[in-house]
Amino acid sequence: MDTGELYERGLRLRKKIFGESNVEKRMQSMGEFGAPLQHIVNAYVYGDIWTRQELPNKSRSLAMLGITAAINRPEEFRIHVKGALANGCTREEIREVLLLVAMYCGVPASNEAHRIALEVFGEA
Amino acid sequence: MDTGELYERGLRLRKKIFGESNVEKRMQSMGEFGAPLQHIVNAYVYGDIWTRQELPNKSRSLAMLGITAAINRPEEFRIHVKGALANGCTREEIREVLLLVAMYCGVPASNEAHRIALEVFGEA
Amino acid sequence: MDTGELYERGLRLRKKIFGESNVEKRMQSMGEFGAPLQHIVNAYVYGDIWTRQELPNKSRSLAMLGITAAINRPEEFRIHVKGALANGCTREEIREVLLLVAMYCGVPASNEAHRIALEVFGEA
Amino acid sequence: MDTGELYERGLRLRKKIFGESNVEKRMQSMGEFGAPLQHIVNAYVYGDIWTRQELPNKSRSLAMLGITAAINRPEEFRIHVKGALANGCTREEIREVLLLVAMYCGVPASNEAHRIALEVFGEA
Amino acid sequence: MDTGELYERGLRLRKKIFGESNVEKRMQSMGEFGAPLQHIVNAYVYGDIWTRQELPNKSRSLAMLGITAAINRPEEFRIHVKGALANGCTREEIREVLLLVAMYCGVPASNEAHRIALEVFGEA
Amino acid sequence: MDTGELYERGLRLRKKIFGESNVEKRMQSMGEFGAPLQHIVNAYVYGDIWTRQELPNKSRSLAMLGITAAINRPEEFRIHVKGALANGCTREEIREVLLLVAMYCGVPASNEAHRIALEVFGEA
Repeated sequence: MDTGELYERGLRLRKKIFGESNVEKRMQSMGEFGAPLQHIVNAYVYGDIWTRQELPNKSRSLAMLGITAAINRPEEFRIHVKGALANGCTREEIREVLLLVAMYCGVPASNEAHRIALEVFGEA
Repeated sequence: MDTGELYERGLRLRKKIFGESNVEKRMQSMGEFGAPLQHIVNAYVYGDIWTRQELPNKSRSLAMLGITAAINRPEEFRIHVKGALANGCTREEIREVLLLVAMYCGVPASNEAHRIALEVFGEA
Repeated sequence: MDTGELYERGLRLRKKIFGESNVEKRMQSMGEFGAPLQHIVNAYVYGDIWTRQELPNKSRSLAMLGITAAINRPEEFRIHVKGALANGCTREEIREVLLLVAMYCGVPASNEAHRIALEVFGEA
Repeated sequence: MDTGELYERGLRLRKKIFGESNVEKRMQSMGEFGAPLQHIVNAYVYGDIWTRQELPNKSRSLAMLGITAAINRPEEFRIHVKGALANGCTREEIREVLLLVAMYCGVPASNEAHRIALEVFGEA
Repeated sequence: MDTGELYERGLRLRKKIFGESNVEKRMQSMGEFGAPLQHIVNAYVYGDIWTRQELPNKSRSLAMLGITAAINRPEEFRIHVKGALANGCTREEIREVLLLVAMYCGVPASNEAHRIALEVFGEA
Repeated sequence: MDTGELYERGLRLRKKIFGESNVEKRMQSMGEFGAPLQHIVNAYVYGDIWTRQELPNKSRSLAMLGITAAINRPEEFRIHVKGALANGCTREEIREVLLLVAMYCGVPASNEAHRIALEVFGEA
């Protein structure tokens, strides 16, 4: 497949999950300097990996909450809480992953994840 | 609930997922020194968190693969690949999480996770 | 022991170390969504682990400063600087742990820990 | 560009840096299960990022030593020591990066990196 | 060499790279409590490691961008973007390291590094 | 103070804590390539930080167990279990730190720390 198509396909999926204006705002903030990274995100991450059919994106979202909490990247965790809600995860399901995070990554990781999830729920 | 009951309930679930002899061998290797940690694992982790009803354990297992790959703990990842298979995850579903790991934790984290998953599949 | 008792015992210790109003504010901010995590913190972390008699809590606090600096969780580090002062650690003792952090976790980890410790000292 | 071309271009570069038989052995060990990850590595990592012209690969290799030591992935660090030598880095230059690792990631990270670098030098 | 000389030599280099007033402001914010850490930074990090002749500081700076992005210390990364520009790295060269970070540490690490680099470029 | 004296003072302390032959074996394995890192360890880490009088080395050792478990460096953790025993820590005190590690860094970090501590105790 052409990487241009991959990029367009990924950008469409990304906008569907996270909202068109959110994605456009984020891409503009990256400017020309960030264009190669946006290519990675759109073409490789969303156009390839997230587009694969072997797992529903709701399950991907639950795994993403564990992954982004574990790697200590709160802004990415915030984005993927929004994505999880858009992909059909309930607050109760989200919480279950955060309780695993408490026991396997430690309570501080789960404290911060709870704080951010509550902020996202408050905005929703 | 009494913590003794919590412990027994967790130990039963743990043996169901990971196999009776595996769990017993692991607990024996911890000895008296490791008894308080085994209490944490049996009572709090499995007797409480894993026993909760709001998420099927198959979904917990998929999230656990992302979490244990992200925190760079290969021996725990190995255990949770076995648990994921026991909880009904397919190899294709497991792989999808490992591809997320590649893009969100980096390719080295996913390389190691692939290597261990393949070892577990080879033993199964 | 009943987990309800464990919870109450932990909550009392937590309030004694970190201050009643601080703990209540934190628990309220977690709401119903955060109740299971607050159960983990009160019953398991403080009601069980911190209540054990084999080590004085002053020594636990010094170890906690090293741990929370190492895992890159500045908000938890801040809480445990306050706890360390309440448990009788001096500023000089706290600094010694932060110098170990510089050599074993790297200078950036110690820079941030110093910055936060100085903020806590300024508020005290 | 077509992703198939990207893959072939990346595979050629990868073999040039790390040796044809090493790369083939690694790819075979990944099997069919690992094919999507090998696609990421060949097409996206080497066919895209490592092929870019804005930085000589010798400089990329020096940065990679810092990155793979920092993320605590010794097997990847080992591979990139070999790659650094193949890309023209001297042992003295490699050591300078490992001394930065000592001060910014902590002495234990640098200890392990030294140990592995010495093993690679011994094999060369 | 006397550690006092090492300190003075390191402080001079540090001021040359990061700017005299920036370094003085940072040192004053550390006060008496932070004096031993400032000794580590001036004497050991800059007076010893950064003063070594085996690698140009431009190469050190590129490695530092990878290291500080990988260890998830955004404030240190920001300082070393400024240092990289002062040491003669171009924006294009800086970006190449951040693209390696995306593939080897994960996209979230590179997202944050891009955001900070763009802020520094905007101030320059 | 002269850095040569700092080095000698640190080397003496290091041999006192970890055993003369252990330290010599480790230093020899580092060879000429590792001489600058050994200078960091002997002069800066042990000659400076560990020699400071504001904290007993028994307390330093307890903090070190938390730090080296948290940063996921099992070989360094092993060395500091030996050092903790030499500095007068009991097995019960060591365990208390490992239980904090379970709750604040996650159960997998504590599992590995327990495994290594038991190996060291078995050799003692």
